This record gives sequence, structure tokens and C-alpha cells, in this order.
Amino acid sequence: MLRPSLRKPNQMRPVSLETAINKWAEGSCLIKMGGTQVLCTASVDFNQPVWKRMQNKSGGWVTAEYSMLPRANSTRKSHDAMTHDNRAVEISRLIGRALRSVVDMEKLGRHTINIDCDVLQGDGGTRCAAITGGFIAMALAVKWMLANDRITENPIMDNVAAISAGLWRGDLVLDLDYAEDCEAEMDSNFVVSGSGKFIEVQSTGEQHPFDQEQLIQLMDMARTACAQLISLQNQVLE
Amino acid sequence: MLRPSLRKPNQMRPVSLETAINKWAEGSCLIKMGGTQVLCTASVDFNQPVWKRMQNKSGGWVTAEYSMLPRANSTRKSHDAMTHDNRAVEISRLIGRALRSVVDMEKLGRHTINIDCDVLQGDGGTRCAAITGGFIAMALAVKWMLANDRITENPIMDNVAAISAGLWRGDLVLDLDYAEDCEAEMDSNFVVSGSGKFIEVQSTGEQHPFDQEQLIQLMDMARTACAQLISLQNQVLE
Amino acid sequence: MLRPSLRKPNQMRPVSLETAINKWAEGSCLIKMGGTQVLCTASVDFNQPVWKRMQNKSGGWVTAEYSMLPRANSTRKSHDAMTHDNRAVEISRLIGRALRSVVDMEKLGRHTINIDCDVLQGDGGTRCAAITGGFIAMALAVKWMLANDRITENPIMDNVAAISAGLWRGDLVLDLDYAEDCEAEMDSNFVVSGSGKFIEVQSTGEQHPFDQEQLIQLMDMARTACAQLISLQNQVLE
Amino acid sequence: MLRPSLRKPNQMRPVSLETAINKWAEGSCLIKMGGTQVLCTASVDFNQPVWKRMQNKSGGWVTAEYSMLPRANSTRKSHDAMTHDNRAVEISRLIGRALRSVVDMEKLGRHTINIDCDVLQGDGGTRCAAITGGFIAMALAVKWMLANDRITENPIMDNVAAISAGLWRGDLVLDLDYAEDCEAEMDSNFVVSGSGKFIEVQSTGEQHPFDQEQLIQLMDMARTACAQLISLQNQVLE
Amino acid sequence: MLRPSLRKPNQMRPVSLETAINKWAEGSCLIKMGGTQVLCTASVDFNQPVWKRMQNKSGGWVTAEYSMLPRANSTRKSHDAMTHDNRAVEISRLIGRALRSVVDMEKLGRHTINIDCDVLQGDGGTRCAAITGGFIAMALAVKWMLANDRITENPIMDNVAAISAGLWRGDLVLDLDYAEDCEAEMDSNFVVSGSGKFIEVQSTGEQHPFDQEQLIQLMDMARTACAQLISLQNQVLE
Amino acid sequence: MLRPSLRKPNQMRPVSLETAINKWAEGSCLIKMGGTQVLCTASVDFNQPVWKRMQNKSGGWVTAEYSMLPRANSTRKSHDAMTHDNRAVEISRLIGRALRSVVDMEKLGRHTINIDCDVLQGDGGTRCAAITGGFIAMALAVKWMLANDRITENPIMDNVAAISAGLWRGDLVLDLDYAEDCEAEMDSNFVVSGSGKFIEVQSTGEQHPFDQEQLIQLMDMARTACAQLISLQNQVLE
Repeated sequence: MLRPSLRKPNQMRPVSLETAINKWAEGSCLIKMGGTQVLCTASVDFNQPVWKRMQNKSGGWVTAEYSMLPRANSTRKSHDAMTHDNRAVEISRLIGRALRSVVDMEKLGRHTINIDCDVLQGDGGTRCAAITGGFIAMALAVKWMLANDRITENPIMDNVAAISAGLWRGDLVLDLDYAEDCEAEMDSNFVVSGSGKFIEVQSTGEQHPFDQEQLIQLMDMARTACAQLISLQNQVLE
Repeated sequence: MLRPSLRKPNQMRPVSLETAINKWAEGSCLIKMGGTQVLCTASVDFNQPVWKRMQNKSGGWVTAEYSMLPRANSTRKSHDAMTHDNRAVEISRLIGRALRSVVDMEKLGRHTINIDCDVLQGDGGTRCAAITGGFIAMALAVKWMLANDRITENPIMDNVAAISAGLWRGDLVLDLDYAEDCEAEMDSNFVVSGSGKFIEVQSTGEQHPFDQEQLIQLMDMARTACAQLISLQNQVLE
Repeated sequence: MLRPSLRKPNQMRPVSLETAINKWAEGSCLIKMGGTQVLCTASVDFNQPVWKRMQNKSGGWVTAEYSMLPRANSTRKSHDAMTHDNRAVEISRLIGRALRSVVDMEKLGRHTINIDCDVLQGDGGTRCAAITGGFIAMALAVKWMLANDRITENPIMDNVAAISAGLWRGDLVLDLDYAEDCEAEMDSNFVVSGSGKFIEVQSTGEQHPFDQEQLIQLMDMARTACAQLISLQNQVLE
Repeated sequence: MLRPSLRKPNQMRPVSLETAINKWAEGSCLIKMGGTQVLCTASVDFNQPVWKRMQNKSGGWVTAEYSMLPRANSTRKSHDAMTHDNRAVEISRLIGRALRSVVDMEKLGRHTINIDCDVLQGDGGTRCAAITGGFIAMALAVKWMLANDRITENPIMDNVAAISAGLWRGDLVLDLDYAEDCEAEMDSNFVVSGSGKFIEVQSTGEQHPFDQEQLIQLMDMARTACAQLISLQNQVLE
Repeated sequence: MLRPSLRKPNQMRPVSLETAINKWAEGSCLIKMGGTQVLCTASVDFNQPVWKRMQNKSGGWVTAEYSMLPRANSTRKSHDAMTHDNRAVEISRLIGRALRSVVDMEKLGRHTINIDCDVLQGDGGTRCAAITGGFIAMALAVKWMLANDRITENPIMDNVAAISAGLWRGDLVLDLDYAEDCEAEMDSNFVVSGSGKFIEVQSTGEQHPFDQEQLIQLMDMARTACAQLISLQNQVLE
Repeated sequence: MLRPSLRKPNQMRPVSLETAINKWAEGSCLIKMGGTQVLCTASVDFNQPVWKRMQNKSGGWVTAEYSMLPRANSTRKSHDAMTHDNRAVEISRLIGRALRSVVDMEKLGRHTINIDCDVLQGDGGTRCAAITGGFIAMALAVKWMLANDRITENPIMDNVAAISAGLWRGDLVLDLDYAEDCEAEMDSNFVVSGSGKFIEVQSTGEQHPFDQEQLIQLMDMARTACAQLISLQNQVLE
């Protein structure tokens, strides 16, 4: 079965990572994966989050907010309609967990890094692009904190990247675009660390249940792809 | 390492399934898994959901709403504080997907089944208990629909049950209770069909990334446990 | 005129009071009055409410939150639809006033007791059941506070219980169930203290105005019924 | 004990009823009871309320909305702070019930009368003033409907007025002003029909429980006072 | 072209300014301009606004809240429907800016004056009436503060008043009433100081663009009218 | 006085207009004016807005929604904090009025064009950039409608562009950037048509009142600048 983009089953879309695209943010990255474009900014807040302060906890925090521009998709959705967007909240929580998993909160000190991931144009895989690009924005903000003596030691312990994969017309394919996503029988998102381990696996087979062997093959694909993404991250961050 | 409940690593907590515990609902089930108690009701609405009507789609729908009583946990949370409870929304979406995956929407006709899962007492694994108990409530509501000639054919294609498993103090353990859950290094939820396939896998290693082999072992554990739960479901539904 | 339940005009439904039904709450009681089931928990907060702190007031506070499970009634109502449920707020205020009227706030110290009354199944008279059961939960929480040396003197000055009564098909009847309530010409709720005095009287004759004599007879009925409920409370609290 | 206003225990404050004070409303009345000023308007909507239409019910409806201007009281409260004002909602419901109790909904036809009661200045007894003044606004709107051939028969079956009374420094007193209300041991509101019967009785003894005899005496006082208010209503409506 | 009210193009409606119409407010004024009636109260808060405190700023603040009673207009709008009333917020901001422009915030000390402008009856030009009347309420509150030794120096530097003007059926006219406003081709609001300078100009030609010359003529008209209004303000404030 | 950007008083910042930057929208334009970047999309809805349908009105409608990305400014603001952003709503209304003023709603037919203006980076003058760029997005969407036979005649009657100008350190300057805007004594926004007439004038002198002569000079400056912007619009639209 030929993919709409003529890609091979395990082929990612072209990736572009552009940094320092926002004059105000301490770190920023515009990530493009094919037609998907996510603008990621990292904002450093010189305070712990309120809940840490109230519970007298030490260390910092990283949090993420994912959102779509009204016309990021084929159908327009007003900002108002997105006020309590459950899907966006769920994705924001995933991005936050993923980025926190590679940060040493003690070394971050009493700071909060807010990662905003705004989808300028969506074409499948936006949450994964947000994690991969959000990591770069966060890493740049950490560089800024080091350079400005806000912290003395790098709190980032490892890279993190993410990719989608799934079952489409009977084939296991990597990095589904919107056209494939709409028809996918099973859909997974993998968050992978620089060490090649998994930080999060989310597999959903609403149309078809899936078996263990299929998930194992998708995990293999994803690990390879994330290694490539992490290598790109490191090039950009040099 | 001894588990707080002295259970073996792959041992579930005692399960109790009590049906017909609500005089108004078309189907109902109070599920207890150890200290976790979830009251599940299925309410039949003789209409499609609004979005199906507006898009002129055929068939029915199943939706779920998960909620906690204010003192279901060690810390009280008022109903108001739970108004936009992102965790609850995320779990509601998971339960809905899980239950829909075993229903033939065309055979359900232009009806909506609303599954309410209210946690009377929480002690770990509430979302999994809600899926397992919610399936029973849904199955009873479908029986009611058949008995009352609202539909002519059973739309339920298979059973569905769910169980948690994770990495606790270095061991892979099944069905974590609250005390274990608080310390778990990695935490997974598995939704499994009667055919022994996976409907949803969610694994999160916020403290530690995990490797493929660990996930495979947890999947094995979960499949065995869900087979037992499904056997209990079928006993209750006879 | 025969009542649907075949009860005599001044006959209450069977009452069941089950305590310690929640492992987390400092006090709890599941009250059943016929088909009405209300789960009451008392949660002790080691702080004054915010408004007392801000106004530099001494002593503690008791507050109540009444809510219905989505399928507590013949028609389902989602949690969302109940977010600003004016009826529930009005009832919560009534329960709070009733319970506060028998508590010495100075002796309670700088604590707040939150009484949550969640209707698992509704069949008329839920607010009265919530007051009668909420008192037990509160009394158990106070015992817990005394046993744990949070306070040194019992702040509870008297019992409080409540019962409904009204005019149904021309007869004055006690403890209306849902079927009677729907048709009642006049409907009252009486909150009565252990000393046999009234704490609150609410009588509404939306269909028919009523005269003073009718209200006096209902007050007599209610006082007798509440004396019985209070005697049951005391048995359970021994 | 001398009342702050030097009134006798059973003496109402001076009442002023000014009609036609709004150029847009179909009926309007500015009622003053001492320092309490409530602007009541009745707006005729040529539709049933939505819930009646959806349930295919016949006849009309009367509904009320009570609100305070931000500086109606000694302490300012912004409109925003009043958005979900539980007290206002409870009072709105009371006013609506009171006014509906004297209207034949079939004769009202498929119309809705919205009574808005905005407190320009509050000094105790605002809900009672709103009922007494709201009745006049409603009666004027009905006159307008008759004059404009929207309806052919008067749907108003009787007058309705309301007054507060309570226990203040050990005395039973009528029509408490703000200074008395703050100290009252027990507080009641009585809604009375033109026929001298009771439509609603609400008595609360948060500080002190009260006995039956006290309530009976207050009911007597209230009935006399409401007869005077109703006589004033009829003068104004001639 | 004859105006509906038979006024000359540059003729204002009759103005009435009634002060001290609220027993609680530190300053109050009921302004009537023809059929437009706005009740303005000034409430003195012995605190800075939260944002000034948090930013450690010196001096006080003046803020305004504009609102309409539900039946202030020909069509009723419930309080609920006005909860997030964008037009009201925009007008509130305008009133606040206008009043702040004539106040020395340092001389005001760490106080906040809240100006509430509630439209009892609307007939065009309500925002301008609110500014003109709000100034009087504010000035009276400042007098109260001086008399009560809350401040030692008058922080009010100049008067401020406002008037509307526009293009109606081809003519430039002053102080449009509701009937004219509905048909106006171009509509302006002018806020003018006692020194005859402009504090705010807002001109909108949604139906027709307008040219510079027209705006200049309207500015001339407005300046003359505001001088009259300011003279009336000063008479009332003596 | 030298401007921070070394521009002459009547010199605009460099303008860049990039079209077709969104694969889903019927029209789109990324406008940059110095550091200000606004992404404008036009979405065609094949329906009238609800209010037109309910009032049985003919013709179409144009509406606008202005929003900022969380880190568009020096201080981050979460999407949640912007849910009821009064400033954004006020600006959205201004953009909508401006764009509607040059559209013949009858020729637009029963369609709605939604213009979304999302500020990627703010540096003063965002609302004006949104109008100038939003016009291009709208014009492209209209071209799309003509090309796809949704309409037969061009409903756009004229161009519209906007520019800010104000009083900064005593000088009248054009197109203020953020650094100037913070210090401006008086600030104006001018919306100008292709015919050189004014569609909207908004001048605010919160710090200083201003006189007529100053406003006239700013209007002259703005008209010249808008003529240039409109010439750029037409180049891009060829």
C-alpha cells in the first residue's frame, strides 16, 4: 500500500528546526515536520509554581501549555471554543511529563520553565513535534539561565524526543500525517530518551484491538526515529 | 520486597461485583477492588449525541463520565474544585474509548449510553475498576434495551476489562494500591479485550525511563489478570 | 387516600444508619430512608475557613456540600450540568445552617469541618436525610478530634435531625417519597433539635396557599418523627 | 427594648410605591420600605420559556431575577463578584414561586413575564419588598397585555405581599431593618396572599432554636402587615 | 431634517444632576440626560488595588464599572447574559481612563475609588452620562475623604465631562438619543477636560467613512457642550 | 529627540507582507512591521452568523478574533489568563468594524468570513498590523470564493489599513514601537480607507489631555502612511 506522501513505512517527514525565533522568550524553536508547524517558546519564571511554595518543596518545575491557532486545522475553531479543550489539556500534560523526566528539579533551583507549544499549522503528529521542539526551547532557556548566572549547573540530564507510529491500512507506519491519521486502525505516541529508553508509550486501538507483537515492532521503529531527532536536536543546540 | 498488602507481584486484590444497585439506572454495578469502590451506572438516552445528529451520522454512541466523591481520597476536594478536573476528563475519555471499542454502533441504533463512574472510595486503580465495572453496567443496559425491544440485536461484540501494573521498588507488580502507586517508578494501565488483545496501553515513566522488555512482561501479567476479570464479568452477567 | 407505599399519614419510611463506611474520612455515615440513600462524610480541616482568617475571627466553622450522583434520579444529569446547580447550593446552605446551629464554634477551635452529602439514590426527602446523616458524620469527626487531642471539649451542644411533611391529595402526610412529592400541594421541611425546638421551618405552597392550622399540625408530626430519628442517632453514636 | 428606629414591635416602616418609572418595561414599580429601595420591572416575552416548549407544555410562566447594585449595601460588591451569588439565586427562586402562586398559567397563554428586582439601596427586608413591588409590576404588565389584546382574561387570581419578622433582643418584631437584622436571634419571611393564607414561610434560628408558639405569633403579625401592603397595592393599581 | 426630539443640531437634552442619593456610598449622583438615567456611586476602599500592591507601586487608583439594569433598554437582557458583556467592559475601561486622567494618584494616597455607573434607563449617550455623573460621585467621595482626614490635599486636578455627537441623516448633531443613534452614519464620543482639552476621542464610521473636516466640527460642538456640563457639575459640587 | 529606532517622526517601520502561509485557510497573510508579527487567516464559513439567521436578515458577515501567543510579549501570559481578555475583545471588535466597513454584505451572500489575527511577536501597533494584514487575508478569501463560484461579484468596495501615531516626549510620531508606546503621552489609532477617508479614530490622552491641532496633525501623518500601506496591499494582491 502506497502512503499518500509516497514515504516508506519507516520514513519520517522532513524535519526543520529553527531557533531564536522570538525576541522575548529565553528559548524558542519553530519545528516543522512536513506540514506540521509548532512554535515552541520557553519562558523562565524566577519563582517556583504556587503549589510547590505552598507545600514548602524544594527545587523547580517545568510545565507545558499546548494550543492550536484557530485555523491550524482544516476546520476553524475559535479561541473561545478552545477554552476548556480537553484534548489540549491532555496533550499539555503529556508534554510536561516528557520534559520533566529529563530535568533534575533540584539543579533547576526555585525556577519554573513554562513551555508554550502553539500549533501554527497542523498536519498530524503535533504533540510529538511539540515535545521534540519543546526540548530545544527548554535547553536554550537553560543555557540562558547558565549564562546569566541564574543557576550554576546544567539540570538537563538527557535529551527527549517523540514520534507517532501506527497501523494504517494493515501496515505499520511511522510519523503519520493527517490523511493517514484519520484512517489509522491503531495509533501510538512514543516518547524516547537520549539513552534509547521509553518515557511514555500511548497506544490506542479504538477501531481494532492490537497484539503485543505489533506494539513491539512500532517501539523499534520509534526508537530509531527518535535517535535521529535527538541527533538533530544536538546539532541545533551546539 | 514485600508488598504492603503482602500480595505476590502478580496478585490482584479481591474483586467484588454487585449489580442492580441503583433503582433508576438501566444498568448498574458497584465494583470493589480492595479498598477501591466505584459505582457505575449506565443510562440509556433514546437519542444520538448532538454531534452525530448535526453531522447526519448513523448509529449510536457510548460515552463515560468519571468523577470522585469529595472525600474519595485522603485529602478532601470540593465538587467546585473538581469542576474542570483535567485528570478526570482524561480518564473519562479513556473509559469511553475502551467501552466503545467493543460496541457495534450501528446495532446500537440511534441511542446514547452514558456510563457514570463515581468513585466512592479510591485506593489505586480507579480508572481500571471503572472500565471493568462500567462494562457490566453497559452490558446490563443493553440487556434492558433488548428486553424492552429498543434494539433487536446485541451490539456488544466482546468483553473489555482493565488493570494497572508497574515498577515498584524495582519489582514488576500487578494492580497497585494507593500506597504503591505513590512510590511507583513506572506506572501502566492496560485495557484488554475478551479475545486477549490490547485496546489501550498507557505507560509512563516520569521518574525513570523504562525499556521494552519491562513493558512486555507487564503486558503478559495484565493479559492474565484481565482474563480473570472477564471471567468474573461473565459470571455476574449470566 | 392510600399512600403509594401504604404507609400511615404520620409514618416514616424505614431508616438505616451505617457508620464508618469511608476509610479516609474522619467521620462518615450512609443513611437510607426508604429508597433515598445519602453518603455523608465529615472531613476535618486543621484551619479556619479563609473568610474567618481574613476577618481575624476566633473559633471554627462547619460547612456542607450537597450533591447528587448523575443517575441519582429517574433522569440523568451530568456532573457538568450540575456545576452551578442552584437547588444544590440552596440545600447545601440549609444543611450547613442546621449543623452549625448545634455547634459551639469557640470549642471547635480553629478547625473547619466539611460535611459532604452525596445522594447515591434519590427518592424524596434527600435534604432531610442529609441533615440527619450529616449530624452523625459530624459527631464522629468530633469524636475523632477529641480522641486525637485536636480539641479538649465536645463542641456539640445538641442533636439535630430533619424530616419533610406536606399536604398530599388533601391529607397531611409525613416523609414524602418521590411519587408523593411530585403531586404534593404543599411541602415543608422541618429541622428540629434534640430539645424539641425548631431550627428551621420551610413551607411552600406553590400550588395552594395554606393556613396556620395546617402548619401547626405538620410541626407536631415533624417533632415526633425527629425525636425518633435523634434516638436512632444516639444509638448509633454510642 | 427600644427599636433603633423607635418603631413599635408590630410597626412596619413607611411604604412608598411609585409606578411607571421605566419607559421601556411593560410594568414597573419602585418600592421603598424605609431605607430599602427596590426597582421592579416586568418584561413580557411573547414566548414560553424554553423548558416549557421542549416539554410541549401549555400555558405561560412567570420568573424573577433579584440583584443588588454594587453599592446597595454598606460594603461594595462588584458585579463580577455577584456573578454566581447563591443568596441572590435563592431569593430569585423565592420571588418567582411567590408570584407564580397567584397566576393562572393557562390564562397567561404562551407568554413569559420576567420580573427584575434590582435593589438600589438595601436596608433589610429586600426580598420581601421585591415580592410586594414585583406583584405590582406584574399586575401592570398584565394590564398592558389585556389592553394590547395579547390575552383576553386576567390570569391574576389574587394579590401577594411579603414581610419579614423575627426575634430581636428577646422581642418579636416586624419588618426588621438592617441594624436589627444583623443582631436577630431568629429571622422569618412570610409570603401572604390576598385571602390571608400563607404561600411561603421561612424561619431560621441559626443562633437559637425557636418554639412553635413564637412562630404562631409572628405569623399573626405578618398576616396583618401583609393585609395593609395588599391594600396599598390595590390603591396603586386602581 | 427635524430631529425626533425637535432639538437643534447642537442642542443637548435637559440635564439633571441629583447628589447624595445613596445612604451607603461615600459619593453618589443620579444623572439624567433626557431619557437616559445613570446612577453613579463612588466607593472608597482603604487599599490600593491588588496589582499596585504586588508591583510595590505608590499612590492610589480610580476604577469604574458600567452596567445596565436588565430592562434599561427596549429589549430585556438578564444579568446572566451580561456576565461577560464586552460592550460594558469596553465602556468601563473608557470611564476609568477618563476619570483617572484628572486625578493625581500620589495625592490620592493608598486608596482605591470604585465608581459604579448603573444605567437605570437607557436612551442613548449612557457612557457619556456615566463619565459626567461619575465625576461628581468621585468628587463627593474625595470631599468625604478630606473631611474624614483620609487625605490632606485634593487629588482632583480638573473636571471631566463627556458628550456624544455624530452624523445623522446628513447632519452633524449633538447628544444623540436612542432613536438617532440607531440610524447614525457616524458616531463619536468626546471626553473633555475643564481646560477645554480632549482626553479621549472615539469616532466610528461603520456605515460611511468620514473626513477630517467633519470630525473638527464635531469636536467644536462637543467642547462647547462639555463646558456647559462642567459648569453644571461645579454648581452641584458647591 | 531621537527615536529609539532612529526613525524620523513620520517614518514607518519596514513592512513585510507574506501571503498563503497556511495550507488550510482560504486566505492568509503574515504581516511584519518591525518587530511586530501578526499571522492573519481568513476562514470562509458557508453560513450566516447565528444572529443573522435568527433575525431573518439577508447577506453575510465579517468578524475578527485577535489573540496573542503566550510569549508574544516581554511577560508571559498563559492562554487561560487570556480567556476573558478585555483588551483582546476590544481589539477584535475594532478589527471587525474596520473590515466590515469596506464590504458589501449583500454581495457577500449568506457567508461568514472569520478573520483570525494571532500575534506571534508583539512590538507595538499590533492592532493596526492586524487590520492591514487582515484585509489581505480577507481579500484572498474573497478571491477564493469568486474562483470557486461561491459568489459572483466582488463584495470588497475599498481597501482598509491602519496605523498608530502619538505624542512621545513632546513630538508627534508615527507607528510607535513598544519602547515608545510605554512612554507615550497620547496614543492614537487611525483606520483609513483607500479613498483616504477615516473609518475609525481613537485617541487617548490618559497622561495629558491633547488639543485639536495635535489630532489634526496626527490625522495627516496617518493618512499618508495608510496610503503607502494600501499601495503595498495592492501589490501583494495582484
